[in-house]
Amino acid sequence: MTKQYDVVILGGGVAGASLAHSLRRQNKTVAVVEDNLFGGTCPNRGCDPKKILLSGLEITQLVDDMQGNGISGRVSVNWPDLMRKKRQYTNPISSATQNSLTADGVDTYHEHAHFNAEGLVEAGNEQLSADKFVIATGQRPSIPDIAGHQYFKTSTDFLNLDEMPSDVTFIGGGYIGFELAGIARAAGAKVHLIHHNDRPLKQFDQQLGQQAIDHLSEIGIDFHFNTEVSQITQVGAQFFLEGDQFQLPTDMVFATAGRTPNVDTLGLENVGVNVDHHGVVVNEHLQTTNPTIFAMGDVVSTEQPKLTPVAGYEAGYLAKYFGGAPAPIAFKAIPTMVFGQPSLAQVGVPASIAADNDQYLLITNDMHKWYSYHRLNEPVAKAKVVIDRNNETVVGATILSNHADYLINIFTLMINQHMKISDFNQEILVYPTFASDIQYLV
Amino acid sequence: MTKQYDVVILGGGVAGASLAHSLRRQNKTVAVVEDNLFGGTCPNRGCDPKKILLSGLEITQLVDDMQGNGISGRVSVNWPDLMRKKRQYTNPISSATQNSLTADGVDTYHEHAHFNAEGLVEAGNEQLSADKFVIATGQRPSIPDIAGHQYFKTSTDFLNLDEMPSDVTFIGGGYIGFELAGIARAAGAKVHLIHHNDRPLKQFDQQLGQQAIDHLSEIGIDFHFNTEVSQITQVGAQFFLEGDQFQLPTDMVFATAGRTPNVDTLGLENVGVNVDHHGVVVNEHLQTTNPTIFAMGDVVSTEQPKLTPVAGYEAGYLAKYFGGAPAPIAFKAIPTMVFGQPSLAQVGVPASIAADNDQYLLITNDMHKWYSYHRLNEPVAKAKVVIDRNNETVVGATILSNHADYLINIFTLMINQHMKISDFNQEILVYPTFASDIQYLV
Repeated sequence: MTKQYDVVILGGGVAGASLAHSLRRQNKTVAVVEDNLFGGTCPNRGCDPKKILLSGLEITQLVDDMQGNGISGRVSVNWPDLMRKKRQYTNPISSATQNSLTADGVDTYHEHAHFNAEGLVEAGNEQLSADKFVIATGQRPSIPDIAGHQYFKTSTDFLNLDEMPSDVTFIGGGYIGFELAGIARAAGAKVHLIHHNDRPLKQFDQQLGQQAIDHLSEIGIDFHFNTEVSQITQVGAQFFLEGDQFQLPTDMVFATAGRTPNVDTLGLENVGVNVDHHGVVVNEHLQTTNPTIFAMGDVVSTEQPKLTPVAGYEAGYLAKYFGGAPAPIAFKAIPTMVFGQPSLAQVGVPASIAADNDQYLLITNDMHKWYSYHRLNEPVAKAKVVIDRNNETVVGATILSNHADYLINIFTLMINQHMKISDFNQEILVYPTFASDIQYLV
Repeated sequence: MTKQYDVVILGGGVAGASLAHSLRRQNKTVAVVEDNLFGGTCPNRGCDPKKILLSGLEITQLVDDMQGNGISGRVSVNWPDLMRKKRQYTNPISSATQNSLTADGVDTYHEHAHFNAEGLVEAGNEQLSADKFVIATGQRPSIPDIAGHQYFKTSTDFLNLDEMPSDVTFIGGGYIGFELAGIARAAGAKVHLIHHNDRPLKQFDQQLGQQAIDHLSEIGIDFHFNTEVSQITQVGAQFFLEGDQFQLPTDMVFATAGRTPNVDTLGLENVGVNVDHHGVVVNEHLQTTNPTIFAMGDVVSTEQPKLTPVAGYEAGYLAKYFGGAPAPIAFKAIPTMVFGQPSLAQVGVPASIAADNDQYLLITNDMHKWYSYHRLNEPVAKAKVVIDRNNETVVGATILSNHADYLINIFTLMINQHMKISDFNQEILVYPTFASDIQYLV
C-alpha cells in the first residue's frame, strides 16, 4: 500500500528535521526517511562533536600561552574523558531527533530512500508518494581511490576514537583536516598533514592561511605539501604511506580530502533529477530539474559553503516557499571558519579581491599587541577588513586569532546591516573586549 | 606671563587625551593639565589592569570546570607573575600618553589645575587662558568617613598589590567590589564582601544578580549583607572591623563603596561652575553653567554610566561640537558589565521594567545546557531579553555567564540597529558559537 504525504523529505539531518517541523506548523503531512543517524552530520559526526573535542586544544593552548604571565601549572588533554563528554552529547541525538519528529506528527522511516518512479519513494517495505519531495541527504567523506584505500579512516572515525594514536596522518588540507590535526596534536599525537599542492585552505586568504600553517608548524604539526600518496600498506600495527619520493609510517591515516554528495543510490535517474560533481542541481527556489522535487543542505550543488546554518536557512526558505511565499532564495554574507588555535575566519569580499580593485580599501592589522590579545598572550592575531569606498561600508573581513569567531560574527552583522566602520565606532560596547578593540582598526 | 590656547583641558585621561588629539586635527591650540598619571583611570588603575588580573580567575575557573570533562591537571594564579604582566602594561602608559600628546603639538602640564578667575587656569607656575575649557578630571575612590578610615586601601592599591594577602575584605558591593573580590579569590585569598543593605549591584537585574552572588558564595566568597562597618582598628599586622553586632578580623580592607568626582580643588566656585553630588552639572552640549567651560567623562553629573567608552564618546562629541556641529549629544544603548566568572551584563530596557509593562515581552532563558555553555561545562548561564511588542525589536538584555560580554555586545548592536529577533535569526553566523546559540532564545 502506498502512503500519501504532502511532503516526503529524504534525509533527517539539520535541514530535513528543521523543514519537517516547520511544515507541521503549516498542518502539512510529512514523512522523513533517514538511513543513518537522525540529526545528520553536524550533531552526530560534524561540527558539534568536533568543537567539543576542540576544547582540549583551546584550554591547553591558553594555559601554555599564560605560563609566566600569571598562571602556574600545566594541564593536558584527557582523551577518554573528552570522548566520554562527546558521547554524552552525541549518543542521544539520533533518537531524540526522531522522537521529536514523531511527537510533532511526522512519520519517520529509518530506511534508505529510493525513487522508484515519478512521485514514488521506496523506504524499506513502504511506498511513499507525495506532492513534493525534498532531497536532504547530505554528504559523506570522500575516500581517495588509491591502493590500500580500505585503510583510510574518516572524520567520523576520528570523532569517535577510543584512544588517540601516537602518530596520525591526515591526507587533505581543507578545513576538516586542519581542525582534526589541531585536536589530535593537543591530545598528544604526532601529527602529519599531507596536501597535494602547496595551497591548502584554498578558500581562505592565502597570507593569513600561511600564517596559520606557520603557527601550527611551531606547535609540532608536520606539513607535507605537493605530496600525493599513491599507496597505503599495512605493516604490523602501522600503515605505510607511499608516493613519488615520499614515504611515511603512521599509526592511523584519515581521508580529509573533501566530501561527496549522497546522490548515487537515490534512484535520481528514475525521476529526472540532474546532478553534477558537487551535488543536486537546483534553481533559485532550490527546485531540481524535476519540478516536484527540491533539494537543500549539503547535498545541493550551489556556490554557498556547505555549513549547518546554511542548511538551516535553506530549510527555512523551503518552509516559506511551500507555504506560499514565491520569492527566490537570497543569501546574506556567510562567514566560514577553520576552528583551531588560531582560528581562521572569513566573510564577504575577500582581501585578495580588494587588493586588486580600486573600489575597495583594504585595512590590514596585526592585532596581537592589541589589548585583548595581549592580555591572554595570544601569539597570533591578524585582521584584514575590506571597505567599499563608494559608501564606506564594511563588505569583507578575514580574521586569524584564537577568538576569530567573536569578531567574524560581528563583522557579519556589520556587513549585513550595511554599517560603516565610523558607524561602528559610534557604538558604545563593553570595554575592554574583543569587540571594543575593533575601534583600533582605523 | 599667560599662555593663550583655543582649548585648555583639565585632565589627561581617556576623554581629555582623546579630545586633545581630535582638536589638533582641527588645528586648534590645545593644552592638557594633569596632576596624576596621563592616561587617567582606565589604563592606569581601572578597567585595563583589572581585566589583566582577571585572567587568573578566568583560566583557573575554566580549568576547574573542565576537570573530568577532558582536561587533567590544575593551574593556579601566580600573583607576582600576573602583577608583573600588569605592570608591564601599565608602567609605560603615562609617559606614552604624554609623549603622544606632545608629539601631536599639545602642550602638557603635569600640574594641578585651578581656575583662578574667569578665563584663567593656574597650572603650577603657569597661567593658561583659553576660549574654551574642558573639565575631564574624573573620579577617585570614595573613602567612608569612619573611625580608622586611614586604614582603607582602594582599588588603586589592589591593582598594584605586590602580594595577595591571605584574607581581604571589600566594603561596598558595587561592580568594583565584585570584580576585585573575584580576582582576589582566584589568587587564593579568603574574601569577604560587606554591603550596607541586601541589594548589592543595585543597577543590575536583581534575580540574576542574586544568582551571581549564589555562585560566588559557592566558590568561597563570604558575603555580609545589611552590615555597616563603623570602626577599623589595627591589631598587630591585622585590621579589626566592627559594626553593630559585627566583628571581623582581616589582613587588608578595601573601600569599594563608590567613587567621588574630582571637583573639589579646581576652583570651580571662582568661575560659576555648578556641581552636585554626582559631579559637574552639564547641559545637552556638555556645557557647564559657565558657557565657556565644558565637562565630560566620569566627572560629569549625568545619568549615563561612568565608563571608558562613554568618556570616549563624549570626547568625540565635543570635538565635533567645537568643530561647528551644533546637535545636542545623544546616546545609543550603553551596555554595563560586572566582569567575573560569571559576568553580569545589561543593556537597554531592564527586565524589571519589562515584567510590569504590557508593551514588552520578556524572554527568560536558562542557557547553561545550550551547546556552547555545555561544551565548557559552564555552571551558570542565564539570559533575559526584552522585546518591544509594538515592532518586535529587541530593546533590552541581561546576561549572566562567563561569556556575557560576547552576547551583550551583540545585543547592543541589535538594539541600536533596531533588529528584530526574527531578523537576527535570518543571519548566518559561524556555528557553533555563543552568537549562533542566540537562535535558541525563541
